[in-house]
Amino acid sequence: MSRFLASVAVTLKPAVNDPEGLTIASALHSLGFAGVASVRAGKLFEIAIEASSAEEARTMAEAMCERLLANPVMERYACAIAEAERA
Amino acid sequence: MSRFLASVAVTLKPAVNDPEGLTIASALHSLGFAGVASVRAGKLFEIAIEASSAEEARTMAEAMCERLLANPVMERYACAIAEAERA
Repeated sequence: MSRFLASVAVTLKPAVNDPEGLTIASALHSLGFAGVASVRAGKLFEIAIEASSAEEARTMAEAMCERLLANPVMERYACAIAEAERA
Repeated sequence: MSRFLASVAVTLKPAVNDPEGLTIASALHSLGFAGVASVRAGKLFEIAIEASSAEEARTMAEAMCERLLANPVMERYACAIAEAERA
């Protein structure tokens, strides 16, 4: 078994209204960041997984998204898998 | 001016306790994901920026993190800049 690090990004689907992102964009404009066109807010999970291969770690991470981490009605997810560095 | 997409990941520093991550790890264990060693929860912001170069967009994104998006006492941030696709 090796240890892998799954970086799971969960973001709202493009058609879903994002009040948190709109509020952050407004705040950035108030701070003088005029070049900000839009902000979308999401969640990031860094999951250390014990698995025998990167493919198994990816399958596990995607199953976690389907069952717990993401709401498939409103959100989409992307998993990036990297082998964890040895301590 | 071109449009760039900044993906800003804001995560708790390793020494900071992460109750959200601990709760998610516990829930994943309860769902049968025994291979989960640890979970850290963070935030992800996808920011569309009008700027003249990728370097300018990165400078703006890092300034946004310092001034609004991240708490430098407890959190660290990473910015990835990509040129936005033309519609």
